[in-house]
Amino acid sequence: MKSRDRSSFNRFSFNHATAKFWDQREAVEACARAGAGIGLWREPLQEAGVDATAKLVKDAGVEVTSLCRAGFFTDPTPESIADNRRAIDEAATVGAPTLVLVSGGIPAGGTIDSAREGVAEALSLLAPYALERGVTLAIEPLHPMFASDRCVVATLAEALDLAAPFPAEAVGVVVDTYHIWWDPQVWQGIARAGAEGRIASFQFADWVTPLPAGVLTGRGQLGDGCIDFRRYLAEVDATGFTGPIEVELFNDALWARPGPEVFAETKAAFERVIAP
Amino acid sequence: MKSRDRSSFNRFSFNHATAKFWDQREAVEACARAGAGIGLWREPLQEAGVDATAKLVKDAGVEVTSLCRAGFFTDPTPESIADNRRAIDEAATVGAPTLVLVSGGIPAGGTIDSAREGVAEALSLLAPYALERGVTLAIEPLHPMFASDRCVVATLAEALDLAAPFPAEAVGVVVDTYHIWWDPQVWQGIARAGAEGRIASFQFADWVTPLPAGVLTGRGQLGDGCIDFRRYLAEVDATGFTGPIEVELFNDALWARPGPEVFAETKAAFERVIAP
Repeated sequence: MKSRDRSSFNRFSFNHATAKFWDQREAVEACARAGAGIGLWREPLQEAGVDATAKLVKDAGVEVTSLCRAGFFTDPTPESIADNRRAIDEAATVGAPTLVLVSGGIPAGGTIDSAREGVAEALSLLAPYALERGVTLAIEPLHPMFASDRCVVATLAEALDLAAPFPAEAVGVVVDTYHIWWDPQVWQGIARAGAEGRIASFQFADWVTPLPAGVLTGRGQLGDGCIDFRRYLAEVDATGFTGPIEVELFNDALWARPGPEVFAETKAAFERVIAP
Repeated sequence: MKSRDRSSFNRFSFNHATAKFWDQREAVEACARAGAGIGLWREPLQEAGVDATAKLVKDAGVEVTSLCRAGFFTDPTPESIADNRRAIDEAATVGAPTLVLVSGGIPAGGTIDSAREGVAEALSLLAPYALERGVTLAIEPLHPMFASDRCVVATLAEALDLAAPFPAEAVGVVVDTYHIWWDPQVWQGIARAGAEGRIASFQFADWVTPLPAGVLTGRGQLGDGCIDFRRYLAEVDATGFTGPIEVELFNDALWARPGPEVFAETKAAFERVIAP
C-alpha cells in the first residue's frame, strides 16, 4: 500500500467515525464515488457481517485504510486477547492493512506503570498472529487526558518503545495529530517513527477548545483549531511515507448531521488545510 | 527553606485556590493554627493589599510556600513583563520564596513552537530581576489538555530545558502530580529536576474522571483518583528535596463548600495519602 504513488489530493481517507451514525454501505459508496479511502469500525462491520463488508468494499473498489479499533488489553485476559485475534481476522478479511489499537486505561487495583507492562505483554501475545495474517497492529498514543480511563500510551516515543521488540510489519504506530500535537518531542517522534518504518496510520483531526465534558467528542474540523497540518504532512512525507491520511473526528455536532454533508465538508477541509 | 528539617506530617501547605472563595485572612489563620504553610494567590493578595498581607502572614507566623500566579507571557509584551516584575515584587514582599509561572497559550497568529520561543525570551527578561529580589521563578508544566489555551509548557523535561540557561536560584520548576502523572518519563524528570536543584514547588492534586466541560475545575481530592502519592513523595524525597508540599485543587464542588471544612478535609486527605 505504501508503495502506491499518490498526490496529496488523492490520499484522503474518510474514517467512518467522523459520520458515526451514517450507514456503512452509504459511506463506502460515497468514498468510492470520491476516490477516497475509508477507515472502518468494528461495530458497523460486525453488524453488516464481516464477509458482506469485505464484498461491499471489493465491489465498490474502495481501499480500506484501517480497521478501528481493538486493544483495551492493559489487563491482558484470555478474553481480551481472543477478541483482539478476532479483530485481526476481521482486518485481514476486509483487506485492512492496519488494525488500530487503543490500549485501555488503568485496571482496577493497578497503576499506570503496571498497565503499561500489560500492554507490552498483550503485544507479545498478538504480534505473531498479526504477522501471520498480514495485518499491522498500530499502537495509537492518545492524548494524555485519556491516560487513566482510555489509553495509558500517551506519547509517540512510548508507542515506538512498545513496538520496538517486534518487526515493523507486525507492530507500528498511529500518527494522529489530535493526540500528539502538544508534545515538545513530536517532530523527533515522527522522524523516528518514519526511520523505523513504523508509521502504520496517519490521521488528522484539529484541536479546539473549550473541551466538552468527558472530553471524548471535542475534536475539531480541520482548520478550526491550532494544528499546522501542512507541517505535519511535510514532516511525515519527509520520512518517505506516502500512505493515506485518514480524517477521524469525534464530534457531537458533526454526528448530528447527515453523513453526505459531513463527508463533503470534511473532504473540502482536508484539501484546504493541505493546499500549499 | 529547603534546609529546614521536616517530617512529612508538617510539610503540608494549603494552597488558597483549594478554597478559592475563602477569605484570605481566615485561610492564613487556619493554617497558623494547624501548623501548615500557605500558597497565596495574587488576586486576594492585591485585594487585601500587599503590605497588609505581608503583615498578616508575619503576625500569624505562617510560612508562605509560594505565590501563584504570574506568567502568561508567550507573547512577551512590555505589559506582560511589567506585570511579572510586579508579581516578583509581591512575592518578595510577602516572603514567598517561589513565584509560580503558567506560561499562557498560543497567541493569535502564532504556533505552539513560536509560543515556546516566547516563553524562553520572557524568562531571560525576568530571571535577573528574580535573582535580585531573591525569588525563584517556578515554571509549571501544565497537563497537555491545557497546551493551546493556558500553558504551552507540557512536560517536566520541557520546563527543565527552559530553566537550564539560568541559575537554579532564579528559575526552577513546579512538580505538580496532577499535570505530570501521565508522563512515561515522569520519574526521570523528577530525578533530573532534583539533581539540577530545580524543584521550586511540589504540589499534590489527584486525577479523576470524567473531566468537566472546560477541564479546568476537575481536580480530585487526594485519594479519590489514580495517583500514587507515596511514590511521588519517595521519588522527590530521594532527590534530597525536603520542602513543603502544597495541595492545590481546582474543583467546583470544593469551592461551593465552607473554607474551614475544605481545609480540614484536605489536611486529613494529605496525611492519609502519605501515611506509610
